[in-house]
Amino acid sequence: MTKSSYLALHEKIKPYIHWTPVLTSGLVNDVANCQLFLKCENFQKMGAFKMRGAANAILQLSDSEKAKGVVTHSSGNFAQALSLAAKAQGVKAYIVMPTSAPKVKVEAVKGYGGEVIMCPPTLKDREEAANKIQKEKGATFIHPSNDDDVIHGQGTATIELLNDHPDLDAIITPVGGGGLLAGTALAASIFAPNCKVYAGEPENVNDAYRSFLSGEIEDNEASNTVADGLKTQLGDRNFPLIKEHVESIITVSEDEIIEAMKLIWSRMKIVIEPSSAVAVAAVIKRKDLFKNQKVGVIVSGGNVDFDNLPF
Amino acid sequence: MTKSSYLALHEKIKPYIHWTPVLTSGLVNDVANCQLFLKCENFQKMGAFKMRGAANAILQLSDSEKAKGVVTHSSGNFAQALSLAAKAQGVKAYIVMPTSAPKVKVEAVKGYGGEVIMCPPTLKDREEAANKIQKEKGATFIHPSNDDDVIHGQGTATIELLNDHPDLDAIITPVGGGGLLAGTALAASIFAPNCKVYAGEPENVNDAYRSFLSGEIEDNEASNTVADGLKTQLGDRNFPLIKEHVESIITVSEDEIIEAMKLIWSRMKIVIEPSSAVAVAAVIKRKDLFKNQKVGVIVSGGNVDFDNLPF
Repeated sequence: MTKSSYLALHEKIKPYIHWTPVLTSGLVNDVANCQLFLKCENFQKMGAFKMRGAANAILQLSDSEKAKGVVTHSSGNFAQALSLAAKAQGVKAYIVMPTSAPKVKVEAVKGYGGEVIMCPPTLKDREEAANKIQKEKGATFIHPSNDDDVIHGQGTATIELLNDHPDLDAIITPVGGGGLLAGTALAASIFAPNCKVYAGEPENVNDAYRSFLSGEIEDNEASNTVADGLKTQLGDRNFPLIKEHVESIITVSEDEIIEAMKLIWSRMKIVIEPSSAVAVAAVIKRKDLFKNQKVGVIVSGGNVDFDNLPF
Repeated sequence: MTKSSYLALHEKIKPYIHWTPVLTSGLVNDVANCQLFLKCENFQKMGAFKMRGAANAILQLSDSEKAKGVVTHSSGNFAQALSLAAKAQGVKAYIVMPTSAPKVKVEAVKGYGGEVIMCPPTLKDREEAANKIQKEKGATFIHPSNDDDVIHGQGTATIELLNDHPDLDAIITPVGGGGLLAGTALAASIFAPNCKVYAGEPENVNDAYRSFLSGEIEDNEASNTVADGLKTQLGDRNFPLIKEHVESIITVSEDEIIEAMKLIWSRMKIVIEPSSAVAVAAVIKRKDLFKNQKVGVIVSGGNVDFDNLPF
């Protein structure tokens, strides 16, 4: 990917996304001891950066592929993103969701025009259900995070952020499946080679942290985190980009995540999801790394369970 | 107040306030059956439009008055607004707060440089404490809502809103003490005489609704509402403006308030306080009045108790 090809890609997805604003807060900066620039993907269509990857992945399909639709498995933001991006491009979206998914999420996918296929909540059932759709319908499978086009799409948030604030010292994202982190790291390496890229990860699901240290993809041993968007696993498409371009991965406790989430909600009056608070918490925790720096943070807002807030 | 004198007033307070953004949401419009334009005073300094009135009231003081400071009684947004506005203009602020005020609000006032004077939580004690400061310190008393300069300051939100969206059919605000509503009604009558002004009020504290009907200031009989910024009473400075320029006052139930608050938080990813949700709820309730119209809503975010959310 070159600068000009990446800008061309960004140009192509612009009709399907918002160029989201960047917000700052003196009160939050005082807490963090640095200048935070929140790239507000919570104001993105359907509430998350996932819209970018989904839009780009569908744009890359041939007309005959588009005619047969797309399929993914997700119970989170990507399910809604693919449904909405497909609808906007006149493409059918099949979304495999576990029977354990909250009803509100299933309804949201349907509201965006996605066809929901329920399956038992195991990895094997999920993959079988998606395979079946691929075979029967000829639909193209699009992975929520381990897909080059999805990774490139997510990176466009960083193109915008660096366009609006070219002098950032660092950008930090949460890491779950790794699509956002890989896209951010790739885009920053192209558009601002001196801007360092970091990730925040919950201590309880620290597979990326351990993978980064060992150099091999490690498994999660637990899934008990409030940051429910980050329980997923790194993949072979995004991990190499992360290894090459990311400075370090910072782990944070559940209390630190909840405190950071409350800080942003109460001080900035914006709703960010727990996964995004992980990145904010990481900056606050590592004052030694970020002191007095200008730090971009990519935040989303889709995965918030308003009936079960952690505070 | 003429158009040019009001614009001059707005110009003078600009250094002390933000020109806040106006946000829209297709999903919220679908629910409301009209086009809503949220004037985001939740992104105002200290989180509410009250900053405008406080800044203007202090600007109107003489140098000798400024030297002696200002005093008010409030446990809500105005306490913080007057503290911050005073600090910005190098003026001492004395804030009388009831001993029942949440600690977090007292700390917020102190954080903005206000000197807190605690008093028992009755109207009489509050007024006595404020009188004492006036006599002892020579400080000027500034009422949170029943003050011409405060009213004029609050109206500047409407100047900005109508500048950004000159074709609004209506503007709606919550009504408690009446300062925002009176300022909005006055500004709209000057800058967009065809734009109708409405208010939303909780059924449980419907003094403004009853006053509007009877033509006399009526008392509240209860105070049990989640919209804790709206328990206060209309005053003799703002009620005449409300009678002259306001179309009607729409009352809403507690459930309608909470539902509207959750709608805005979840769909628009912004934090608005229960008092602001009252205005949103009123628009949703009266689809007959607002159908297909362009409706401005002035929303704030300062008075949110994150440890005691209603959902």
